[in-house]
Amino acid sequence: MRFDIISCQPDLLESPFSHSIVKRAQQKGLVEIHLHDLRKYAINKYGQIDDYAFGGGAGMVMMVEPIDKCISALQAERTYDAIIYMTPDGKTLNQTIANQFSLLQNVIILCGHYKGVDERVRQRFVTHEVSIGDYVLSGGELGAAVLADAIIRIIPGVLNDESSALTDSFQDGLLAPPVYTRPAEYKGMKVPDILMSGDSPKIEAWRFEQAVERTRQRRPDLLGE
Amino acid sequence: MRFDIISCQPDLLESPFSHSIVKRAQQKGLVEIHLHDLRKYAINKYGQIDDYAFGGGAGMVMMVEPIDKCISALQAERTYDAIIYMTPDGKTLNQTIANQFSLLQNVIILCGHYKGVDERVRQRFVTHEVSIGDYVLSGGELGAAVLADAIIRIIPGVLNDESSALTDSFQDGLLAPPVYTRPAEYKGMKVPDILMSGDSPKIEAWRFEQAVERTRQRRPDLLGE
Repeated sequence: MRFDIISCQPDLLESPFSHSIVKRAQQKGLVEIHLHDLRKYAINKYGQIDDYAFGGGAGMVMMVEPIDKCISALQAERTYDAIIYMTPDGKTLNQTIANQFSLLQNVIILCGHYKGVDERVRQRFVTHEVSIGDYVLSGGELGAAVLADAIIRIIPGVLNDESSALTDSFQDGLLAPPVYTRPAEYKGMKVPDILMSGDSPKIEAWRFEQAVERTRQRRPDLLGE
Repeated sequence: MRFDIISCQPDLLESPFSHSIVKRAQQKGLVEIHLHDLRKYAINKYGQIDDYAFGGGAGMVMMVEPIDKCISALQAERTYDAIIYMTPDGKTLNQTIANQFSLLQNVIILCGHYKGVDERVRQRFVTHEVSIGDYVLSGGELGAAVLADAIIRIIPGVLNDESSALTDSFQDGLLAPPVYTRPAEYKGMKVPDILMSGDSPKIEAWRFEQAVERTRQRRPDLLGE
């Protein structure tokens, strides 16, 4: 899967994409990530990519022309399955959407900044608008990093143990059960006896119960209650 | 405001915290961000901080002892208002929660990784559990970056123009209206006439209408509909 990420602050994304699972996915050749600096497509030699909003008000707006030029240059090279704009008023990302995106081949992710992009960019170029949650960030870059990470880790072959992703929260509509590791007792706090029993079917039953109970307490909406 | 972020991959967070608004907030002395490498508190000279889950199953679990040692070292220096654990089964972050956190002085953010932390860490040390959305990431680091960014940009003095943050999506319970900038016409696409009228009261009325309409179409849940 190939990601082309368009940003006016591409350096901000450097460290998240050069560590951990995302780095390994690139090394394994399963994922390519290309960062594009929008300022290379600026409208003048001063690197201008934004301007004041028509109608007044605080905050700058990203201009349509640099974004058009950048997207067009990419589309001249290959076909894209999705041009995703990261914006707080987009569709809220969830595991199902991440799973769906993980089936695509080539995607562009456009990071907003300041007050966002000129509406005409959204009307003309963008195919999907995605929000990572109901809060505002200083730019779309962290949103792009989150979206890419959520997608990349479920691409087959990326995780060493694929059954690990399948037992994560949300994949089965439940929150994950509590987990424990050594030592069995730490400052008076003990691991539940059942987990030390070696009785796998009972342990699985306990985990399922705990997952249901935790979901009921914390996120009854996931159970439709 | 001071953030102490505990992670087994602190390098992953370097570039998000050294750019843009978050960088400026640190330069202005409004925010301090300290990254702590959990491996410095490992249980042995091999840097061990995780182990297999009791009861079996895929994925490693972060041990209680290194986290205890790291948090205790920080607490010996100062008092913390919150010890926040980033986890998909935490309380879902929204703008109201970000606003509330922005009033605190000292917070610790603990990043999970692998299958998460030993449950006893959550029982004994953690005061708040936060999720940035209903999806799973390869670690809590991006969640920590998102939480810190959402908080930092609303600390008074961080944004150059504070009225900008107040007109963002979610601050008034509505999505933001569309924005446009120059040129007035681009490849046949025109800016709405009203925005060129210079009639500020009418423009504000139009923007409010558009914000309500966009919220109704995209997020009727925000209107309680």
